[in-house]
Amino acid sequence: MSAINQKQDLSPRRKKLYEVIFESDTPAGRWFDIILIIIILLSVITIMLDSIRSVRSQYGSLLFYAEWVFTVLFTIEYISRLVSVKRPLVYAKSFFGIVDLLAILPTYVSLFIPGGQYLIVIRMLRILRIFRVLKLVKYVGESKVILQALKASRRKITVFIFTVLTLVTILGSLMYLIEGEENGFTSIPRSIYWAVVTLTTVGYGDLTPQTVLGQMLAVVIMLLGYAIIAVPTGIVTVEMSNAVKQRIGIRKCSNCSSDNHDEDAVYCKYCGRIL
Amino acid sequence: MSAINQKQDLSPRRKKLYEVIFESDTPAGRWFDIILIIIILLSVITIMLDSIRSVRSQYGSLLFYAEWVFTVLFTIEYISRLVSVKRPLVYAKSFFGIVDLLAILPTYVSLFIPGGQYLIVIRMLRILRIFRVLKLVKYVGESKVILQALKASRRKITVFIFTVLTLVTILGSLMYLIEGEENGFTSIPRSIYWAVVTLTTVGYGDLTPQTVLGQMLAVVIMLLGYAIIAVPTGIVTVEMSNAVKQRIGIRKCSNCSSDNHDEDAVYCKYCGRIL
Amino acid sequence: MSAINQKQDLSPRRKKLYEVIFESDTPAGRWFDIILIIIILLSVITIMLDSIRSVRSQYGSLLFYAEWVFTVLFTIEYISRLVSVKRPLVYAKSFFGIVDLLAILPTYVSLFIPGGQYLIVIRMLRILRIFRVLKLVKYVGESKVILQALKASRRKITVFIFTVLTLVTILGSLMYLIEGEENGFTSIPRSIYWAVVTLTTVGYGDLTPQTVLGQMLAVVIMLLGYAIIAVPTGIVTVEMSNAVKQRIGIRKCSNCSSDNHDEDAVYCKYCGRIL
Amino acid sequence: MSAINQKQDLSPRRKKLYEVIFESDTPAGRWFDIILIIIILLSVITIMLDSIRSVRSQYGSLLFYAEWVFTVLFTIEYISRLVSVKRPLVYAKSFFGIVDLLAILPTYVSLFIPGGQYLIVIRMLRILRIFRVLKLVKYVGESKVILQALKASRRKITVFIFTVLTLVTILGSLMYLIEGEENGFTSIPRSIYWAVVTLTTVGYGDLTPQTVLGQMLAVVIMLLGYAIIAVPTGIVTVEMSNAVKQRIGIRKCSNCSSDNHDEDAVYCKYCGRIL
Repeated sequence: MSAINQKQDLSPRRKKLYEVIFESDTPAGRWFDIILIIIILLSVITIMLDSIRSVRSQYGSLLFYAEWVFTVLFTIEYISRLVSVKRPLVYAKSFFGIVDLLAILPTYVSLFIPGGQYLIVIRMLRILRIFRVLKLVKYVGESKVILQALKASRRKITVFIFTVLTLVTILGSLMYLIEGEENGFTSIPRSIYWAVVTLTTVGYGDLTPQTVLGQMLAVVIMLLGYAIIAVPTGIVTVEMSNAVKQRIGIRKCSNCSSDNHDEDAVYCKYCGRIL
Repeated sequence: MSAINQKQDLSPRRKKLYEVIFESDTPAGRWFDIILIIIILLSVITIMLDSIRSVRSQYGSLLFYAEWVFTVLFTIEYISRLVSVKRPLVYAKSFFGIVDLLAILPTYVSLFIPGGQYLIVIRMLRILRIFRVLKLVKYVGESKVILQALKASRRKITVFIFTVLTLVTILGSLMYLIEGEENGFTSIPRSIYWAVVTLTTVGYGDLTPQTVLGQMLAVVIMLLGYAIIAVPTGIVTVEMSNAVKQRIGIRKCSNCSSDNHDEDAVYCKYCGRIL
Repeated sequence: MSAINQKQDLSPRRKKLYEVIFESDTPAGRWFDIILIIIILLSVITIMLDSIRSVRSQYGSLLFYAEWVFTVLFTIEYISRLVSVKRPLVYAKSFFGIVDLLAILPTYVSLFIPGGQYLIVIRMLRILRIFRVLKLVKYVGESKVILQALKASRRKITVFIFTVLTLVTILGSLMYLIEGEENGFTSIPRSIYWAVVTLTTVGYGDLTPQTVLGQMLAVVIMLLGYAIIAVPTGIVTVEMSNAVKQRIGIRKCSNCSSDNHDEDAVYCKYCGRIL
Repeated sequence: MSAINQKQDLSPRRKKLYEVIFESDTPAGRWFDIILIIIILLSVITIMLDSIRSVRSQYGSLLFYAEWVFTVLFTIEYISRLVSVKRPLVYAKSFFGIVDLLAILPTYVSLFIPGGQYLIVIRMLRILRIFRVLKLVKYVGESKVILQALKASRRKITVFIFTVLTLVTILGSLMYLIEGEENGFTSIPRSIYWAVVTLTTVGYGDLTPQTVLGQMLAVVIMLLGYAIIAVPTGIVTVEMSNAVKQRIGIRKCSNCSSDNHDEDAVYCKYCGRIL
């Protein structure tokens, strides 16, 4: 964001445009953001209504025009953003830049590929801007704690997901051997799908073991799934605990500038000076 | 409650009424509360029985009269509460004041709107008074720890729920595109409903993916749901841990600045000085 | 157990019997326990086989006689236990005393009430003796940690279960109003059953919301259930953490005999002496 | 692994072979490992495709030959491994040695027992080698933390699983008595299967209680399952927390005896002395 925020070198008009579109400190910028969010929500609701057959048959053309109005509005907004920033490429490549583009593309794509307009629900991601508008600084802080915990636990979670995938592949294949095609386990991929449904305790019931041996294996998988859910939970809880501690403990040492001291520290752990 | 409890300025009769209705220190007040809870339970059971067709067809009129007797009793109680407190509005706006009102309204509403009387199950909320009657001070303390943990984690939980909602909207729409109407995913809202059913590992099975691509996406959603349940768990566990610690109380040693002393410690466990 | 263990005053024969039946230090006592566990397992398997129609029709009488043999053996064992201890009533009222009695009663009850013999599966509880036989002292220690954590969190869990019950009653009734009898929600108790199935993320799918409003409420209940599972988890984790810490930290102060010092304590927190 | 790694006494040719097959420091060794993993994945995909009827009917013979090619390659690899190490038995008995053997056996077994080739999915386990190839040292470290936590909690988890098994046996038998054969609970083992499905919150819905009493017991089991999932979660979280702490390392201050110092601390944060 810092790269985009350099507005001092812009012309006064672009500067003004930048303030309205990218910032929400001025009344104009604030109104822009609030109206933007309302339009985003309306656009998503339009898409949802359009997917319901009975609504579409009655209000189809109305929803069609509404959709195009929203898309044109978002396109104008996207171009304005590109124009108002000093380095358009930096914005275009940023997370919100990509989301903003993806939010308008589907409608244009739908001109060529029917059904493509439903992808527009990606617009939901734009709603994340709401956090900035409402100046929910505290919420941003909380999000950071969650993100930091997830980031810190990503390697452990990867190992865990990988192990689970290996497990369901082997268990699914075993189940394919035990139950066979006559009980609905028509292939190994389908049996793996069943194993995931069972291990994660989702349990649709569209595929259930019919043989005694199959039910015994299912019982083992269920107990396994019931027990190993504890692993990701344990991982995230520990990292979450660390993330919360670290956030509280932002105390800077005036001597050596180190800043990750614990809440209860009296002396700097790096240089020994009193904090 | 402190605002309601100012009974010193009430007339002797209202004071007496206040003691019986609002307090449970006197024998009369205690009996009042016990009888009240029994009536609340009887009333809820009446409503439940009335909803069973076979019971209603046989004892319908009996249950109807019972319901009106309970409602009249609760109405008298509600008016008595309003009369006995010094500032009726403060009571009327309090949590229990609103619950008490909601507990009698449905029966009267049912005179105009058929079926409205089932809303009376809100009366169940009145049962929360039981904690006060039984003088379960310890339970109140435990509830406070849970409430404090939930309060402390409300922002993180909000961010989490918001993220989950964005996720299921996008995943549900994708599933609508993949499976389509012929496999039961008749609209985006319905597909979002399916995504929630899957992500939360509920898994009714009233709607299941039929195509290979749909099953692959379902597997991803299930593993996602299985992994991200760790997030709210981690949040609440950390806050619960803090809430328990805070309740015990942080005591700092003035000599060595260590602060993780137990509630019952007299001397610092690190340097041996008196705390 | 200490009350039962007073064997010094018993006659030599009863003392011998006591050692064989209640202890597993001597070879005879060890063999007695191992054989006992095998018989318990055989007995449970017999009951299970007897419940399968195809097995029962073929080996019914064999299983019937086996069951009576086991019951007679257990009855002899129970009487021996009563005889060999000094104070039979203390044993009879103890946990294992009651389990031992419940393990033989169903067969006799089945003479009068058909089907009663299936209750004999309570015998499974007798298998808990296995921990004593295998001298799994460490397992007993681990069990104690779990039990202590559950004991410490029982009040919080009670408050939690109570809140959940109030919640499902209100949500179930709401669902009864929304969906109605035509969609399978035939009564409030049945709707409450559905609410529990949904909130606990079990999700059988025997009862699912059909109306749009019902599906919206279901989504709310699912997200609620997905989030509040964090509460018991948080409670037990915190208490488990405390239980583990306390177990490690059994360090006794030689001066004041207090014994709940932390692992990292250097001085007694009660009297200030060095540990 | 240390026993296998003694390559100094091998002949130059065997030494070279050893480096290529067992190590991935040299370019040849690295390429060997990458190609190996690709072949493993191809082999697993072949098996999966072969299990889909429509694919098998069309490409059956192609997949059959591919499978044999892979098996011959793996057999050559296995023999090479045996030859290149100094002590073949140590390798043959190691985890990967057994996995490597199990990965080739099923194809040979399928010559005698039809269907046996599906067991070949055990090859998935070979993919675990990927961690070594990619030099994911950090991932190995993370895996160790998870494994250590699971190892430390294995006794508590055993006690927990044992208790759950006892519980589902008793609850399943009770359900068999309540619901009976006419509602699908045809035997005690089948009712135990249902109890596991319910307690673990999987909830297929292939078997659901039909009687009011059965539904009440089901509600109790669901709430039980919802609450006791907290137990394994609590256990693993606590042990995970310990495992992470131990990995960081406990450092004690020689001056003030405080010991919760961070890994990177140089000075005691309580008294300022050098650690």
